[in-house]
Amino acid sequence: MTELPGIVITGASGRMGQMLIKTVMASEKCKLVGVVEREGHDWVGRDIGEAMGGTAIGVHVSDDALEAFAKAQAVIDFTAPKATLAFAALAAQARCVHVIGTTGMTDDDLHELSHAAHHATIIRAGNMSLGVNLLTKLTKMVAAALDDDYDIEVIEAHHNRKVDAPSGTALMLGEAAAEGRGVSLNDVRDSGRDGITGARKKGDIGFTAIRGGDIIGEHDVLFAGEGERIILRHVASDRSLFAKGALKAALWGQGKRPGEYDMMDVLGL
Amino acid sequence: MTELPGIVITGASGRMGQMLIKTVMASEKCKLVGVVEREGHDWVGRDIGEAMGGTAIGVHVSDDALEAFAKAQAVIDFTAPKATLAFAALAAQARCVHVIGTTGMTDDDLHELSHAAHHATIIRAGNMSLGVNLLTKLTKMVAAALDDDYDIEVIEAHHNRKVDAPSGTALMLGEAAAEGRGVSLNDVRDSGRDGITGARKKGDIGFTAIRGGDIIGEHDVLFAGEGERIILRHVASDRSLFAKGALKAALWGQGKRPGEYDMMDVLGL
Amino acid sequence: MTELPGIVITGASGRMGQMLIKTVMASEKCKLVGVVEREGHDWVGRDIGEAMGGTAIGVHVSDDALEAFAKAQAVIDFTAPKATLAFAALAAQARCVHVIGTTGMTDDDLHELSHAAHHATIIRAGNMSLGVNLLTKLTKMVAAALDDDYDIEVIEAHHNRKVDAPSGTALMLGEAAAEGRGVSLNDVRDSGRDGITGARKKGDIGFTAIRGGDIIGEHDVLFAGEGERIILRHVASDRSLFAKGALKAALWGQGKRPGEYDMMDVLGL
Amino acid sequence: MTELPGIVITGASGRMGQMLIKTVMASEKCKLVGVVEREGHDWVGRDIGEAMGGTAIGVHVSDDALEAFAKAQAVIDFTAPKATLAFAALAAQARCVHVIGTTGMTDDDLHELSHAAHHATIIRAGNMSLGVNLLTKLTKMVAAALDDDYDIEVIEAHHNRKVDAPSGTALMLGEAAAEGRGVSLNDVRDSGRDGITGARKKGDIGFTAIRGGDIIGEHDVLFAGEGERIILRHVASDRSLFAKGALKAALWGQGKRPGEYDMMDVLGL
Repeated sequence: MTELPGIVITGASGRMGQMLIKTVMASEKCKLVGVVEREGHDWVGRDIGEAMGGTAIGVHVSDDALEAFAKAQAVIDFTAPKATLAFAALAAQARCVHVIGTTGMTDDDLHELSHAAHHATIIRAGNMSLGVNLLTKLTKMVAAALDDDYDIEVIEAHHNRKVDAPSGTALMLGEAAAEGRGVSLNDVRDSGRDGITGARKKGDIGFTAIRGGDIIGEHDVLFAGEGERIILRHVASDRSLFAKGALKAALWGQGKRPGEYDMMDVLGL
Repeated sequence: MTELPGIVITGASGRMGQMLIKTVMASEKCKLVGVVEREGHDWVGRDIGEAMGGTAIGVHVSDDALEAFAKAQAVIDFTAPKATLAFAALAAQARCVHVIGTTGMTDDDLHELSHAAHHATIIRAGNMSLGVNLLTKLTKMVAAALDDDYDIEVIEAHHNRKVDAPSGTALMLGEAAAEGRGVSLNDVRDSGRDGITGARKKGDIGFTAIRGGDIIGEHDVLFAGEGERIILRHVASDRSLFAKGALKAALWGQGKRPGEYDMMDVLGL
Repeated sequence: MTELPGIVITGASGRMGQMLIKTVMASEKCKLVGVVEREGHDWVGRDIGEAMGGTAIGVHVSDDALEAFAKAQAVIDFTAPKATLAFAALAAQARCVHVIGTTGMTDDDLHELSHAAHHATIIRAGNMSLGVNLLTKLTKMVAAALDDDYDIEVIEAHHNRKVDAPSGTALMLGEAAAEGRGVSLNDVRDSGRDGITGARKKGDIGFTAIRGGDIIGEHDVLFAGEGERIILRHVASDRSLFAKGALKAALWGQGKRPGEYDMMDVLGL
Repeated sequence: MTELPGIVITGASGRMGQMLIKTVMASEKCKLVGVVEREGHDWVGRDIGEAMGGTAIGVHVSDDALEAFAKAQAVIDFTAPKATLAFAALAAQARCVHVIGTTGMTDDDLHELSHAAHHATIIRAGNMSLGVNLLTKLTKMVAAALDDDYDIEVIEAHHNRKVDAPSGTALMLGEAAAEGRGVSLNDVRDSGRDGITGARKKGDIGFTAIRGGDIIGEHDVLFAGEGERIILRHVASDRSLFAKGALKAALWGQGKRPGEYDMMDVLGL
C-alpha cells in the first residue's frame, strides 16, 4: 500500500493558513503531518484542531520548521517574503516540494529563491486558481489575435478591506494582454481614470477597481471593438479555491525534478 | 379631426439635431413643421430631407427661429447654453413648449431660464431616457432603505471617444444615492481608485469608468453588503433613445401650465 | 441590565439548522437557549457544540419543543410544513415569536397557520434576505411604471444540485412583476423556451434557469425596451445571509402584537 | 495604381442586403460595382442609391446575376439556399470569390455547394463576426482544458422578434464545447429547463434563451465549477458587424485558390 503524501502548512494561525489546514484535512489524496508557526506564537505546542476551535486531531503546532519538513513530502507556504526565503532553504534540505503563494516578493527575493530551486522543486504562483491561470492564457491569445481596434480594459471587483488597486491578478491579466500585443504594460497602462481625461488613447490597457462588501474576487478582461465586445470573465466564489489549487500543486510536484514551476505547468496549460 | 402637434428642431445639422428630425418624422403623433440653424450656416434655405442626404420633404432650414416657433406647438432643443437662453425667450413669445436637452448650463444660465418659465412651459433634463430617470429614482430609494453596511459603487461604461469621467449620468446617479443617504456627494465621492488606497472608507460612494469601442452607455449602481449584492443597471442600446424621450416630453407638455418641469414629471415618477 | 432575547433553533442537525445556530452564537444581540431535533435523532441529549464537531457550549439538543420554547423569546424554524404547524401551536402556547422559513406550505397549511397567528407573532417569508425582498418591491414598482413595450424576463442561476426550475424566488419576482402590471402570472408566464417558439408574445413574463457549480443564488429581472434595458439584479454570496435575515426577524418581532408578518414588515419596506 | 476590388451584393432590397450595400459603399478598400435582385422585383432597373431612399450613386439594380458578377472580384450573398446554389455556379463561371452568409442550407445543399468549390473560392459561415468565431475557438479550448467538474451552460439573449431558441450561434458554441470534451452535443444537450428537473446531470451542456426588446445578440458560455466560474462572453452592438465580416472575407479571398473556406480561415484562427 502506498503512503499518502504528507503535507506541512506554514503560518498556521493566519486566515489562509487555517484554510489550507482544513483543505488538507478534507482531502483523501494526502495527509496533514505538520503545522508551523513562528517561535513565541501562543499556538506553538497546542493541538492544531483545538487551536482552531474544534476537536484535537493529533498534530501539534511546531516552531521547528526543519523538523516538520523532514517528515513531509510537501510544504505549502502563504506567509511573507523573508519567511518564505528561509523556508525555501529548509525545504531544499528536507527534499520536500515547496509550494509558494506568498505575494510581494521583490526581484532580489526572486533571485535568491532561484538558488534554492537548483536543489528543490518549487512551485510559485500569484494566483493558484485553475480558472485565473486559464484566463491569463486566453487573454494573451485573444490580445494577439485582435489588433488595437479592440480596446482592452481589465475590470476587477474585491471586498471593501482590500488596500490596493488594481489587484495583483488584474495586473497579471494586463501583463498577459500586453504580451499578446507585443508591448510593455508600463507603456500602455491607464489606471485611475478620473476627470477630463481626453479620448481614450488607442492601444492603452485600462484598469478599473470596484470595491464593496465581501466580494471574493471577480475579473473581467474586455475587448471592445466597433460593433462587438468580447469579455473573458472569472468569478471566485469560495476562498478555499486558492487552497485547493495549492494542494493540487503540492501533489503534482511529487517526483518532479528540481526547478521553478508555476501553475501553468501544474495545470498543463 | 384634431391637428397633430407641430414640432420644430433647433441645431438641425448636428448629430443630435438630425436624430431628432428623423424621430419626429417617424412618429405618428406629431409632425415636423420647422428646423432651425444659425444664420450663415450653409444648410439655411435648403430642404432638410435633401440636406441630410435623402429626398426632399418640403420643410426648409430657417435661420429665423421666431417665425419657425410661431407655427409650432413645441420646440426641441439640444444646442448650447447661450442659444438655448435665446430660444427660451422666443418660445415663450410664440407660446410653444420648450424641451431642453442642452448640457453645461451654469447656475446663472438656469437662473435666467427660470424667468422664461414664468410665461412658458419648459421641460429640461440631463438625460431624457425613461430608463435612466427611473433608475435615478430607484437609486435614491434603495440608498435610503439600506444603511452604510452596503457599499455603493457607480460603474459606467462608454465609447472610446468620451473625454470625461465619470459620466454626467453616473454623477446624477451618485447624487441620487447621496441624497437617499442624507449626505453630500462631495463629502463621500471616491473616484479614480489607483495604487495603495487603504481599505474602502465606510460611507463612500465610488465611481469607476470603463472606456472602449462603441459602447453607447451603460450604468450600474452596486450596493454590496455582507452576503449579498443588489445591482441596478441601465443599458442604452440605441442613441435614438434620447430623441424619443425628448419627443415624449414635447407631447406631454401640450396644455400644461407655464413652469419648469423635468423628465420625472413627464414620466409620472 | 436587560437580558438578551433567547433563541431556539429547530431542525438542529440540518444544514440550515446548523447555519442558524452558528449565526445566533455569533450575534451579540441575542443568545442561544435551546436547539430542537425530532424524537429518536441521535443528536438528542448531546451538547450541540460537540455534535457540530466543535467544543461544548452548554446547550443540549432536546426533543421536547415546548420545554425549549418556554425558556425562549423566539424560535427560528426552517423545517417542513407539518413540523412547522406543530411548532406554531407550541410557540403560541409558550408566547414566543415564531420565525418561519419553511417552504412548500400548501394553502391548507397556510390557513391552519393563520389560526395560530390569532394568539402568536408569526413572521414568515419565502426568502429572508433583505436584498431579495427589496428587489421584489422594486420589481413591482418598475413593472407598474413601464408599459408592456418593455419585455420582462426573470433570469436565475443556482448550483447544480437544485432540482426545480424556476426557483421559488424567481417566481416571487415574477408575481411581483405581474402584480405591478395588473395581470395574473399564470396568464403570462413563459418558461422553458426551446425550439420554434414564434416571436415573443407581448406582455409575457419569461423565466430562464441557469444551473452550474456552486452558485448560491442570482436573480435578474430584465425590462427590455427599444433602445434601452433596465436590470434589477440580486447576488447572494453567502448562505448565512438567510440565517441573518431570520435572526433580524426574530429580534424585530419582540413586543409586536400577535398576527402574521413578512420580511417587508421587518425591513420597513 | 491598383484597382480596388469590385463587389456585387445579392438580395439588394432585403435588410441584410441594404446593410451590405452601405458597408461596401463606406469602405475605402473596395467599390460597389453591382447589385442584384430577382427578376420582376420593382427595384430592378432603378439606381440603388435612390431605391434605398437616398441620392443616386450610378449603380443600377440588375436581375442578370452573371452579367453583374462578370464585372466583379467578389459577390456577397445573404439570400436563400436555392438562390445561393444558383449564384455559386455563376460565381465560379465569372471567377469571382463567393462569400455566403445564407443560413438554413441542408446537407444536400452543402454537398452541391462543394462541387462549385472545385472551381471557385467559396467562404461560408453561420456567423461572420470576428468575435463570435474567436469565442467558438476559445470555447472548444476551455472545454478541453477543464473536466466535467465544470458545468457548461450557453446563455443567449436576442430581440423579441426572434422565432427560435436557442440561437444558431448558441448551438455553434455548444457544438464547440462538446467537441472540446470529445462528446456529441446530441447526447448532452439540455435546453428548455422547466419544472421538476432533478439535479443537473454531470456532463450536460445547458442552453437558456432570453428574449426581449431590441437586443442584437449576446452569448455567454459559462463554465461553473466549485469555487469559481469562467465566462466567455460576446456582445454584438451593431448589426453592421456581420456585413463588415463578410466584406473582410471578400477581400481576404482575393487570389486564394479554389476551395471552401470559413471565417476561421479568414481570421487566421
